[in-house]
Amino acid sequence: MAEKVVLYSYFRSSASWRVRIALALKDVKYEYKAVHLIKDGGEQNSEEYKKLNPMGLVPSLEIDGHLLTQSLPIIEYLEEKYPQPALLPTDAYGKAQVRALSEIVNSGIQPLQNLKVLQKYGDGKEEWARFHIERGLIALEKMLEKTAGNYSYGDQVTMADLCLVPQIYNANRFKVDMKQFPIINCVHDKLIQLPAFVAADPSKQPDTPEDMRKN
Amino acid sequence: MAEKVVLYSYFRSSASWRVRIALALKDVKYEYKAVHLIKDGGEQNSEEYKKLNPMGLVPSLEIDGHLLTQSLPIIEYLEEKYPQPALLPTDAYGKAQVRALSEIVNSGIQPLQNLKVLQKYGDGKEEWARFHIERGLIALEKMLEKTAGNYSYGDQVTMADLCLVPQIYNANRFKVDMKQFPIINCVHDKLIQLPAFVAADPSKQPDTPEDMRKN
Repeated sequence: MAEKVVLYSYFRSSASWRVRIALALKDVKYEYKAVHLIKDGGEQNSEEYKKLNPMGLVPSLEIDGHLLTQSLPIIEYLEEKYPQPALLPTDAYGKAQVRALSEIVNSGIQPLQNLKVLQKYGDGKEEWARFHIERGLIALEKMLEKTAGNYSYGDQVTMADLCLVPQIYNANRFKVDMKQFPIINCVHDKLIQLPAFVAADPSKQPDTPEDMRKN
Repeated sequence: MAEKVVLYSYFRSSASWRVRIALALKDVKYEYKAVHLIKDGGEQNSEEYKKLNPMGLVPSLEIDGHLLTQSLPIIEYLEEKYPQPALLPTDAYGKAQVRALSEIVNSGIQPLQNLKVLQKYGDGKEEWARFHIERGLIALEKMLEKTAGNYSYGDQVTMADLCLVPQIYNANRFKVDMKQFPIINCVHDKLIQLPAFVAADPSKQPDTPEDMRKN
């Protein structure tokens, strides 16, 4: 792989975080370009960044001479180019289950509580975020009753796990009562021990503020 | 295919609609089970339906003895089982582009303006919906400048088109000014002529109310 890989990321963006885990698991080296979501009204809203990513969202990934957007499509691309370790099962039904678990977070929870949406929501946004995270996690816990082993889908680390960990970080930020989700907690606690998850953590990124840094 | 295929759908649900188009394009016969999203507080919230779909969302698809949830994972499953006509390009970059176009709608717009979320939002929900639809379509139009031909991705009907058409229906419901989106309009107007899109239209479903029916 001679071509440079560049990740446009923000340390605490959960969609960026998912892609960082995938890159770490698949051992793809990359340059980290920080996009500060708060400073100066958000660098993601600059004309320059929007040329790369018209939604004004992180992450974007430069790879193989292409510019990719949207975390799950980026992860699917990495899966095709770097098949090992596999983040999807091999059978069609397994893939559908992992993708559905991923979408519960990706389309069912995260869009309702991301920074842009909460800024627009205004007063009462914490309660709004907490409501939607809790509703989604109730569904996720139910699905995990059928699919989970050590991780979300049996004992294989999958795309669903890459979505789960950042969402639990946000659940805690918004003070969701996590005691009601024993399977999610159990899976989460195992995942965060894995080296790729440790490396991708928001506390360890080039743009992590000093007071949030853990080494 | 001896096994019965059953789609749990609501005529006006845009996620159900995407799957109906996929089933029609791939000529998969199915039984339609209507899930009324309004009546009696919403049949999707019943304990019985939530056993099938813990998020309490349509669509769900019974197929090959499995129960699948979430529209994009369902479409990806259909793509693998019934490869023709293909709804994804063959190359990894093409797939990433089509999936990203799909996610702009699936995670970037639709979750912010679906029925459940608007019911929770309360007063001002029309302006909220319009804001988020418009913001997403501005990004989509920008991306289509690079990818569109007759359809969203060149001249191939793809998963991105299955997401586009229902979203434009909602854009019109919420009175988004569509004049600012010439490429989207052009692609949309071609798509809705295609037989599979005609068959999947909300005006033609078993649960379409009489006064909204067109034959």
